[in-house]
Amino acid sequence: MKRVEIAIQDYYPDDFAWCYGCGRLNESGHHFRTGWHGEQTITIYEPLPEHKAIPGFVYGGLVASLIDCHGTGSAALALHKKNGHEVGAETPPRFVTGSLSVDYLKPTPQGVPLKAIGTLEEIHPKKWKVHIKVFANDIVCAKGEVVAVVMPSTFAENK
Amino acid sequence: MKRVEIAIQDYYPDDFAWCYGCGRLNESGHHFRTGWHGEQTITIYEPLPEHKAIPGFVYGGLVASLIDCHGTGSAALALHKKNGHEVGAETPPRFVTGSLSVDYLKPTPQGVPLKAIGTLEEIHPKKWKVHIKVFANDIVCAKGEVVAVVMPSTFAENK
Repeated sequence: MKRVEIAIQDYYPDDFAWCYGCGRLNESGHHFRTGWHGEQTITIYEPLPEHKAIPGFVYGGLVASLIDCHGTGSAALALHKKNGHEVGAETPPRFVTGSLSVDYLKPTPQGVPLKAIGTLEEIHPKKWKVHIKVFANDIVCAKGEVVAVVMPSTFAENK
Repeated sequence: MKRVEIAIQDYYPDDFAWCYGCGRLNESGHHFRTGWHGEQTITIYEPLPEHKAIPGFVYGGLVASLIDCHGTGSAALALHKKNGHEVGAETPPRFVTGSLSVDYLKPTPQGVPLKAIGTLEEIHPKKWKVHIKVFANDIVCAKGEVVAVVMPSTFAENK
């Protein structure tokens, strides 16, 4: 499986690196990792055998989870770049999900890596919309949209 | 935690009881269970400690997963009832998710049971829309919609 070389999640501050989807410090989690792919963004993940809907097909909630973290990771990449930083230089911003939608276009086969590809749209200085396609074997199995919002300071106070 | 006494997922055929979200036979899964709650439907689930977004708050992908299976379970309940059957009598229909949307209204606190409550809308003989609110401590933390579709026969062929 092709690996995302430079991922924004590798540089989230430790306090915000516990996400079940994409936190590098969450031992039980999926460890989704999101990087640039030209002007778009990419996350690659191969679901585990237990992540099934019915035998042979991936669980829709896992696809939604991939879209969720791909969305927040993509928004973090975009704002970090807009702020003039390379990934790995300076601490990146951290986003939360405001809303999420998924259209399940085809059953998603198990046993192959999924590729989420994101296209970015800035809709507010602190808010990005990410348009996402999830590919399996180069076929689009799901389309999604995430509105990601810069994490409010109230989160940090409750950590 | 209050338990859903009679859940539709307890009666899915064995071949379709492997879902990571709601399959009773998937040992690694969440085991979401959905039953009637008056004219509405209910699923109760307390996320595990690892299902966090940041410490103290539930992962959005887990909330989306709960909404996903609550939607398909609710549609199965509705069609089974429409067909004149009680839960537990006859094999219930099995639905897949056509689309899913979630609005995250408030950070969802960890350490308390979440209650998904669904309101059903028949939009086609084989398609139901389920309007869902997810409560923590009686506060609505997320709202969602699922369009659930009777499982196509192609799924059964690939099982």
